[in-house]
Amino acid sequence: MNSSNKRRAASEPVSELTTNRLSVYLRCLHQLEASGVETISSQALAEQFGLNAAQIRKDLAYFGEFGVRGVGYYVKDLKRHLRQILGLDRKLKVAVLGAGNLGQALADYPGFRREGFEIVAMFDASDTKIGDASRSGVPIYDIRDLRKVARREHIDIGVIAVPAESAQPVLDMVVAAGVKAILNFSPGTLRVPPGVKLKSVDLTVSLESLSFYLAQGGEDG
Amino acid sequence: MNSSNKRRAASEPVSELTTNRLSVYLRCLHQLEASGVETISSQALAEQFGLNAAQIRKDLAYFGEFGVRGVGYYVKDLKRHLRQILGLDRKLKVAVLGAGNLGQALADYPGFRREGFEIVAMFDASDTKIGDASRSGVPIYDIRDLRKVARREHIDIGVIAVPAESAQPVLDMVVAAGVKAILNFSPGTLRVPPGVKLKSVDLTVSLESLSFYLAQGGEDG
Repeated sequence: MNSSNKRRAASEPVSELTTNRLSVYLRCLHQLEASGVETISSQALAEQFGLNAAQIRKDLAYFGEFGVRGVGYYVKDLKRHLRQILGLDRKLKVAVLGAGNLGQALADYPGFRREGFEIVAMFDASDTKIGDASRSGVPIYDIRDLRKVARREHIDIGVIAVPAESAQPVLDMVVAAGVKAILNFSPGTLRVPPGVKLKSVDLTVSLESLSFYLAQGGEDG
Repeated sequence: MNSSNKRRAASEPVSELTTNRLSVYLRCLHQLEASGVETISSQALAEQFGLNAAQIRKDLAYFGEFGVRGVGYYVKDLKRHLRQILGLDRKLKVAVLGAGNLGQALADYPGFRREGFEIVAMFDASDTKIGDASRSGVPIYDIRDLRKVARREHIDIGVIAVPAESAQPVLDMVVAAGVKAILNFSPGTLRVPPGVKLKSVDLTVSLESLSFYLAQGGEDG
């Protein structure tokens, strides 16, 4: 969809863990830029944000020669490169399925907008919600108009924020509307056809790693 | 806090990636039990849920001998063991800081309750919210009463769901109230003192891995 990733096209695929780390680096660079920092070494980046310097160098080297000997990384340049690698150099349009508390929270989540994701629509089946909008102004459409609105608005990513029992039928509607990437917040396993990417966020997993920590009597692990 | 993890106490610490995978296995076992499945091999478990069989065997072997030759795993037994390992064999009490859309969504998130997390309180600074309750009945307290309520209710985990600019001061209040484990949904880096475990969930990271997928022209990576 863009031409910025030629370097890795011929090599092995990049794991989701790597792209997750690139996202984290990007977030750190935002903060550095906001504080007026112009260059930073992998060592300083690692120390300041609790990361691993060798891992940073390895992850970045995979995509090109971004470091400069004796200087480290130019914050603004590296930020631009990471945004290209992550496909954030074009606006991606997002629709949220389900206009309950979770859907509304996601529609108004400030982090999405900052990275260039544009939440263009919410969808719901409830008459009391259809025609309304989120606090930040995202319109709520009738779920029955999904295909029409998805095409008109060129929606790239669908976010599933409906109750578990509606998740698979709603996901099927999103796929039928031609959306190729789906982020799911609903619990339970969902199925997508080949050619569609599904990523599920299970909020319980995060709480359980804290539970594990507490069960160990609080030693870090 | 419980005595179920003696086996690993003497060995190296378990990574967060491992505990995350244990959480996923537990979720799969729930589904299998609900469908009446009594035993399953690591191979079948892997195939049915898109996991890695060797990884499953390795992760589980670390905590004990749960597999039975020629049978695989007893679903109910393994579920019980995983719940013990993850510290879910006792109720953990959770407070949500911030009663906006995100806080309300988290307070009512059905997955938490199913795993034995009890959301006992929300806190907010807004007079229009204090004294009210979430849809599922979680009471909203004045943030100024945090210390008092946290002690009375024996809160184990605090969940930060406030705007970015209030996140650090609210986190400091949670720590001062004696809470040792914190799950943060606010963007930006937060600091905790030693002895307190902080886990941050950045929802933007999930969207960015989809963005990366779309930027590759949709080939899986």
